[in-house]
Amino acid sequence: MTTLARSNRVRRTWWTDAVDAAGCTAYTVYNRMMLPAAFEGAAVDCAHLKRAVQVWDVACERQVEITGPDADTLMQRLTPRDLMQLDADQCAYVPICNHDGGMLNDPVALKPRPDTWWVSLADGELRLWIEGMAEAGGYGVQVFEADVQPLAIQGPLSDDLAARVFGEEIRALRFFRHGRFPFRGRPMLISRTGYSKQGGFEIYVEREADAMPLWDALMEAGSDLDVRAGCPNLIERIEGGMLSYGNDMTDLDTPFELGLDKFVQRYDCIGGDALRDHVSDRRIMAVEMDGPLPICDRRWPILADGTRIGVITSAAYSLDYGCGVAIGMVDRRWDAGQGVEIVTQDGSKTGRLRERFWR
Amino acid sequence: MTTLARSNRVRRTWWTDAVDAAGCTAYTVYNRMMLPAAFEGAAVDCAHLKRAVQVWDVACERQVEITGPDADTLMQRLTPRDLMQLDADQCAYVPICNHDGGMLNDPVALKPRPDTWWVSLADGELRLWIEGMAEAGGYGVQVFEADVQPLAIQGPLSDDLAARVFGEEIRALRFFRHGRFPFRGRPMLISRTGYSKQGGFEIYVEREADAMPLWDALMEAGSDLDVRAGCPNLIERIEGGMLSYGNDMTDLDTPFELGLDKFVQRYDCIGGDALRDHVSDRRIMAVEMDGPLPICDRRWPILADGTRIGVITSAAYSLDYGCGVAIGMVDRRWDAGQGVEIVTQDGSKTGRLRERFWR
Repeated sequence: MTTLARSNRVRRTWWTDAVDAAGCTAYTVYNRMMLPAAFEGAAVDCAHLKRAVQVWDVACERQVEITGPDADTLMQRLTPRDLMQLDADQCAYVPICNHDGGMLNDPVALKPRPDTWWVSLADGELRLWIEGMAEAGGYGVQVFEADVQPLAIQGPLSDDLAARVFGEEIRALRFFRHGRFPFRGRPMLISRTGYSKQGGFEIYVEREADAMPLWDALMEAGSDLDVRAGCPNLIERIEGGMLSYGNDMTDLDTPFELGLDKFVQRYDCIGGDALRDHVSDRRIMAVEMDGPLPICDRRWPILADGTRIGVITSAAYSLDYGCGVAIGMVDRRWDAGQGVEIVTQDGSKTGRLRERFWR
Repeated sequence: MTTLARSNRVRRTWWTDAVDAAGCTAYTVYNRMMLPAAFEGAAVDCAHLKRAVQVWDVACERQVEITGPDADTLMQRLTPRDLMQLDADQCAYVPICNHDGGMLNDPVALKPRPDTWWVSLADGELRLWIEGMAEAGGYGVQVFEADVQPLAIQGPLSDDLAARVFGEEIRALRFFRHGRFPFRGRPMLISRTGYSKQGGFEIYVEREADAMPLWDALMEAGSDLDVRAGCPNLIERIEGGMLSYGNDMTDLDTPFELGLDKFVQRYDCIGGDALRDHVSDRRIMAVEMDGPLPICDRRWPILADGTRIGVITSAAYSLDYGCGVAIGMVDRRWDAGQGVEIVTQDGSKTGRLRERFWR
């Protein structure tokens, strides 16, 4: 356990002071910005997230804005997902691949207005990929990091909290759809999305002047709902099989290997030829692990009968399931139920491959 | 002071265990990789760096490898520095600009062999800028992050330590030149570079198998030189006027505003037109500050006679100079000697603009 050295380079968000004051005990750095990682500890935070409602500072989900007459064309060039089929109010999970079909990022994209995309980044370098593409390809667009800072509301009581602050109409917002809802008389762009399986919303805050009033309004309106400051929870996301760019995938993994087949809908994009010809011999699987686990801060080899068959990319201990929950990239020749040995920095652990995640 | 949450996504280096064991008390994250930030504290670390010799884990200086017949052409397209004038063994500080002349990164580049560049990145997203450019521009190159992990030797006793491990010949290596020197019978690429003004070397370690043997050899050979594990030091680098990408510059600053005029040598590069027409009304200056300072984790406004004339981008207290040492981006109409007020999170501090940095 070591301190995170703070500097100007590791960017604060509009809520960092509030997050500190709320008792954040650990941060990580995500897109060169502060992302809270723990308050009372992963297990306590997880139990609360599943029971009540949390407000998350996810400003580090940086928005790359692509705007101009060629925005749709460039965006479609970037992803194998067919964007023409989207409704205007839809949020789209869009795998972005390199020339070889490797994943460069797995953002959620939406159009706040015609001819403009916001690409909500996972941790990575995607902005300059898009800028470089626009520059070298001569697209009629501007590409920049918009100073939009998302704040998430997550947990089973999210609808109740959101309705109190933004009005009852927000309850009708469908999954992965966005709309504008009033806060203090101004329309805020809000989507029913978020990095948990507990339900909730992400609010795309566009002005610093709205940031702390919104935080305070949520905390005040939710006091009887036991609302707390929170953050993406490692245990909860692994139980739910939510992948994390940089942990569970890099540019050496293709959408097919990550189980993202359904988002590969056309091949006239960068990496399309590689994706069309792709034959993958490994896949993401859930892996149950026995006993207490160290922090998964490196890839753990998975052995079956002494042979290396894959790696664990994320792991944590789940109180709810009474076992270690983990995500692994595993050779396709091995099936669910297979007993495995996992080599951690604290020695070998036993476990078994699973067909599905826990939730 | 909060903990850095560790995960697979924030990449460990080949020396992270050794750095932990050596008493690292704070890390930062740099290019999504662990970078030690303090051992005994900035002031003690600084005094030791100026007196003896340190070994720094700077694996986070990721090497973007550009290789292929068009490598020179693409590289020259990326920077206003004239690369044709470089000698084969030269290391080049190369500003990389976007279309508007804003700084995307300020790496040091070298050619480990013909038709191949290694671009040693400051913290940023440059790899995918180059990949995107190569992809969209149709250059005959491969671009990837080479798994080369630099280890630095810095401090006044660097030559003595390096000579003991790599042979006496290394003393003749000139500033910003590189060569190959033997370690255990294998040639290692070493340059006389590094992120301090105390002198020293950077060793481009290309194999994990060499990493800990090299660390151990340096620690053993330098025991009577008081060699210690260290890291880039905030105080020392500000005293010496060494800029930090992400702290002292972003893509909103041009080379001219950063005092990098001498590296702008041609305009037939990306951003060249903007640089040719550029009129800058601000510049980087040294700023002396009075009294104890909080951590500079945000930009501090600089006021003169109540008017905002710039921002402080980095600051720390220097025991050697008995004042706060700071870097500011300041309106050109204001000269050295000007008394200023600096608005920190702990209230206003007095100070004055300086023409030069301290060393």
